[in-house]
Amino acid sequence: MAEAKIVVIGGGTGLSVILKGLKKITSQITAIVTVADDGGGSGVLREDLGMLPPGDIRACLIALSDVEPILEELFNYRYENGHLKGQSFGNLMIAAMTGISKDFRDAVIKVGEIIAINGRVLPVTTQNIHLEATLMNGKVVLGESKIPLSVIKDQTAIDRVVLVPPEPSPTEGVIEAIHEADLVIVGPGSIYTSILPNLLVRGVADALRGTSAKVAYIANLMTQPGETDEEHLKGYLQVMERHVGGGLFDLVFANSEHLDRETREIYKKQNAFPVKTTKRDRQFLEEKGIRLVENKYIDVVKHYCRHDFDLLVKDLQKELRS
Amino acid sequence: MAEAKIVVIGGGTGLSVILKGLKKITSQITAIVTVADDGGGSGVLREDLGMLPPGDIRACLIALSDVEPILEELFNYRYENGHLKGQSFGNLMIAAMTGISKDFRDAVIKVGEIIAINGRVLPVTTQNIHLEATLMNGKVVLGESKIPLSVIKDQTAIDRVVLVPPEPSPTEGVIEAIHEADLVIVGPGSIYTSILPNLLVRGVADALRGTSAKVAYIANLMTQPGETDEEHLKGYLQVMERHVGGGLFDLVFANSEHLDRETREIYKKQNAFPVKTTKRDRQFLEEKGIRLVENKYIDVVKHYCRHDFDLLVKDLQKELRS
Repeated sequence: MAEAKIVVIGGGTGLSVILKGLKKITSQITAIVTVADDGGGSGVLREDLGMLPPGDIRACLIALSDVEPILEELFNYRYENGHLKGQSFGNLMIAAMTGISKDFRDAVIKVGEIIAINGRVLPVTTQNIHLEATLMNGKVVLGESKIPLSVIKDQTAIDRVVLVPPEPSPTEGVIEAIHEADLVIVGPGSIYTSILPNLLVRGVADALRGTSAKVAYIANLMTQPGETDEEHLKGYLQVMERHVGGGLFDLVFANSEHLDRETREIYKKQNAFPVKTTKRDRQFLEEKGIRLVENKYIDVVKHYCRHDFDLLVKDLQKELRS
Repeated sequence: MAEAKIVVIGGGTGLSVILKGLKKITSQITAIVTVADDGGGSGVLREDLGMLPPGDIRACLIALSDVEPILEELFNYRYENGHLKGQSFGNLMIAAMTGISKDFRDAVIKVGEIIAINGRVLPVTTQNIHLEATLMNGKVVLGESKIPLSVIKDQTAIDRVVLVPPEPSPTEGVIEAIHEADLVIVGPGSIYTSILPNLLVRGVADALRGTSAKVAYIANLMTQPGETDEEHLKGYLQVMERHVGGGLFDLVFANSEHLDRETREIYKKQNAFPVKTTKRDRQFLEEKGIRLVENKYIDVVKHYCRHDFDLLVKDLQKELRS
């Protein structure tokens, strides 16, 4: 049997962690990664070298890599002193490779070869884009890293986001990968800063609607402050629909496990709450023709919630077979 | 027949170029490299990260590496913009590896493994040393990169150099390598900034005197301003003898080819002249029991002189056989 072709779309930690799980079931993985990030070490390199932000891409490359532990450790190493303090060696490697390559896409492919990745990692666009948010209070904030800060400072929420410049072209291979896939996974991750910066790239949302692949949305476990005005699953789907239209998903994977009280209290202090799936959410999904897969996807380690990716991958595998 | 064990001691461009030639005849090469450098990208990292200078070591690693061209190009890449402008990626890789390794020696070995080197590269010491020169005018200059500048500014020459702190311990393996070698090569390179910073490390000069290996000095082709007060071969040997005592060498390889007038004129403008071997030099060597090997070792490319390393390696090979 041919290996399943899986596309994962996102950014941030969520994307790299799910890739680690998925590479156990197939080598035919394409990770499509946002390049709207402008904070941290990525932001410094973006400003300093005029390159696209390498951070999320670095995390995906290392997640798919099958390299000796020493090279993995090196790739993830962050300098501890001086001007480079906090900068990651992997970012600097992508930066150097960009300097000797045709373009950013080509550089990412070559770094992937050096660290022996299974599958491939594609920046969703190679255009120099930024994320701009309009907040509920009418304020406009340019720059991904500034958005959450403004939301917290103004005690407001995000109304909508756009890419600047709008509708950048997708990287060669992005649309094709979605069309040729057996399964496309969107998320988990921040809806505004990891998911939408991908969906807003020209042709991506249409490809999700047009592909014969099953398209699954992995719902977040916890809300993020200012990201959605409610704690319900359908809120996330409505945000996406408002930005790029509906009809994107065949499936939604949501957590059904109750979070312990103590962990809930800790998250509450940061204004984060469990994402709920209520009767109204089910009704919403049914009306949209989206099938809901629920399971105990929550994995709590030291009061820090994350997805149980082994279980999630197992359930995703079932969908591939059915 | 077992492969010949060759040790090369030096720093700078000369060392890395001879390594490229030698790796064709044996894989049993140990490069012993000065770490007194404090200029350029190495100096920045030294100051910024408190590490030993990686530049000369990087050049030796890449000279001994058998890696795909893309990784070699990457390792040699220098950033073109921002804070990292002029810094080499290879230096940053050695810096990152130092951050996750036991010590600098261990880091250099691991980088060598990643870029698949034949042989090994050892920093002569892993102590944080600096070079200090006393000039002919009595001025004391601390810091390798500052010495040539002071020499030119004051129109003087170097009288002597010391390491600060003095007599640092040799890196594990350095003394052993000299004792176990079939051939030890010192130079070519700047006598004060590439050769002596090695010979002044505790035990190195004694090991050269005590080893059963043939020990060869590769004379420079051209003088360097302020480095020796005369243009004669024996001047170099006398400088070394004054610093660490005599009896170091069995052989000296010197150029016998005449340099064309135009190239001589160009070098003259920078106060550099061909190193001569006269009757008095021959007499000096004979008295010291040092055999002189002369050949047309000069290779002029666009009025830039360098050693003809193919010929030099061929002649070195003859000495191994005899």
